[in-house]
Amino acid sequence: MMNEIKIFSPATVANVSCGFDVLGFCLDSVGDEMVIRKTDKKGIYLTKIENFDLPYEAKLNVAGVSALAMYETLDLDFGFEIEIYKNIKPGSGIGSSAASAVGSVFGMNELLGKPFNKTQLTEFAIKGEALASKCEHADNLAPALFGGFTLVKSVSPLKILEIPSPDDLYATIIHPQIEIKTSESRAVLPKEVALSDAIEQWANLGSLVHALHTNDYNLISDSLKDVIVEPHRSQLIPHFNDVKQAVLGAGALGAGISGSGPSIFSLSKGQETANNVKEAMQSIYLNSGIKFDIHVSKINTQGVQIID
Amino acid sequence: MMNEIKIFSPATVANVSCGFDVLGFCLDSVGDEMVIRKTDKKGIYLTKIENFDLPYEAKLNVAGVSALAMYETLDLDFGFEIEIYKNIKPGSGIGSSAASAVGSVFGMNELLGKPFNKTQLTEFAIKGEALASKCEHADNLAPALFGGFTLVKSVSPLKILEIPSPDDLYATIIHPQIEIKTSESRAVLPKEVALSDAIEQWANLGSLVHALHTNDYNLISDSLKDVIVEPHRSQLIPHFNDVKQAVLGAGALGAGISGSGPSIFSLSKGQETANNVKEAMQSIYLNSGIKFDIHVSKINTQGVQIID
Repeated sequence: MMNEIKIFSPATVANVSCGFDVLGFCLDSVGDEMVIRKTDKKGIYLTKIENFDLPYEAKLNVAGVSALAMYETLDLDFGFEIEIYKNIKPGSGIGSSAASAVGSVFGMNELLGKPFNKTQLTEFAIKGEALASKCEHADNLAPALFGGFTLVKSVSPLKILEIPSPDDLYATIIHPQIEIKTSESRAVLPKEVALSDAIEQWANLGSLVHALHTNDYNLISDSLKDVIVEPHRSQLIPHFNDVKQAVLGAGALGAGISGSGPSIFSLSKGQETANNVKEAMQSIYLNSGIKFDIHVSKINTQGVQIID
Repeated sequence: MMNEIKIFSPATVANVSCGFDVLGFCLDSVGDEMVIRKTDKKGIYLTKIENFDLPYEAKLNVAGVSALAMYETLDLDFGFEIEIYKNIKPGSGIGSSAASAVGSVFGMNELLGKPFNKTQLTEFAIKGEALASKCEHADNLAPALFGGFTLVKSVSPLKILEIPSPDDLYATIIHPQIEIKTSESRAVLPKEVALSDAIEQWANLGSLVHALHTNDYNLISDSLKDVIVEPHRSQLIPHFNDVKQAVLGAGALGAGISGSGPSIFSLSKGQETANNVKEAMQSIYLNSGIKFDIHVSKINTQGVQIID
């Protein structure tokens, strides 16, 4: 029986313009690596965390909290050690906490012989995610676990739909290294929205789901609109409108805020266009004095996976 | 060259719970018959209207207005006569005006050798529909023209998506013969909605589109919810909640308001269940003193069609 496993837990993009709070997709070029190891001592132990200064106490650590949520449903005479090699910057808006929350429970489940399905793993991971985001949501967790595009139909009961997507779809994501306080990104959300705007948003979301099913890149492009949240949150992201205009000029299908920002995602047909979009994004930020990371990634249809 | 054509212009269900203002589907067991005939005299002429007392003057008649909208884009040295054998009661909420608006332009297009595609025909029909409903919308027109389920992504520019649906899907529709004034059904619509409700609605619509693509009847059932409009408009329909409870008890996948009411639609897997749902609907209204019509129909995937 396996005693140790190394996994890749991917970054993810949540919201995806018209899919606010429900849609997400999975990246493959950026993610955390984690080692999960069985240990004789009962309990959950963070034994190594590299690259970022995160808490070692399990109940204060996102990966630890999701691990504990699973662990406490079992009656095991052994425990688990967790090592985190963190590559996704916390607060970047590409699912850093979700990757941690997912990685621990995925790895433990593998070592235990897969007693839980992916929806059950998401339930555990929600507990870890809640430590970071102060509310229970799954729009980054679901794509990290299932891969591809996911639609979280409801959190309670948890119902996750896997939406197919075209093979040649690439994401380009820029992370301007500014801090947006969660409280601030929440505060700008409207509590009420015009019915006419809500109708436009769900027309676009229904259309995007149809476009993903039918590999219709033009319709994906037409549907990547957010009339509800982006007008507010984009004001917290310097050069957002310039970036959006530049990437559309470079051939992107669309662009929007990744999660609650500050990262900006765009989607493109083909890797070449995604690389052109990268150039366009860089050109906006290079003279801004704001540091940034930038990623080009195929849509990762597998999600979290074993690498050793 | 054909000089006369007889067509069947079907009734339709718009809104479909979570798809308020964008989604619709087409029926095959109820619809109008119309005859469109070329005539030497230039212009559009209503020459026969059976069953209901509707205006004969083309510019005051829904079928006439849509016909004129098309006719005026052409430079013909002849005209058209229109006969309407109206079976869909005006004001029933199953697309009576849409059937008229669609029938005339579809028939004329056939007689002219199909110069226009279905989206263009919808543009003309919108003008007729606007005469009846005082605003330009296409959520009944699109399913009447295209058949099956349609999603009107936007009206301007007009973009209609054809959503596939499972083969064994049946609708049962009851039309309680009460009058709901358009002004009243508009007045109860909220101008603003809670963001949380809007999110739930678009999660359900995204889910319904996915369910229709994947033939997932359980998910269709789970998705047929309307947290935005039904709570308000259902109060205008006597026994709505009783009917809904009864049809779910009889095995329906879901139920909701057809268009702006007063008709109530439900969807079922299989004709037998749809017939049981009919019994359940009848049982609620039989002792109410309210007259009603009731229809069981397969989803009509063809839409408006030639019958002679």
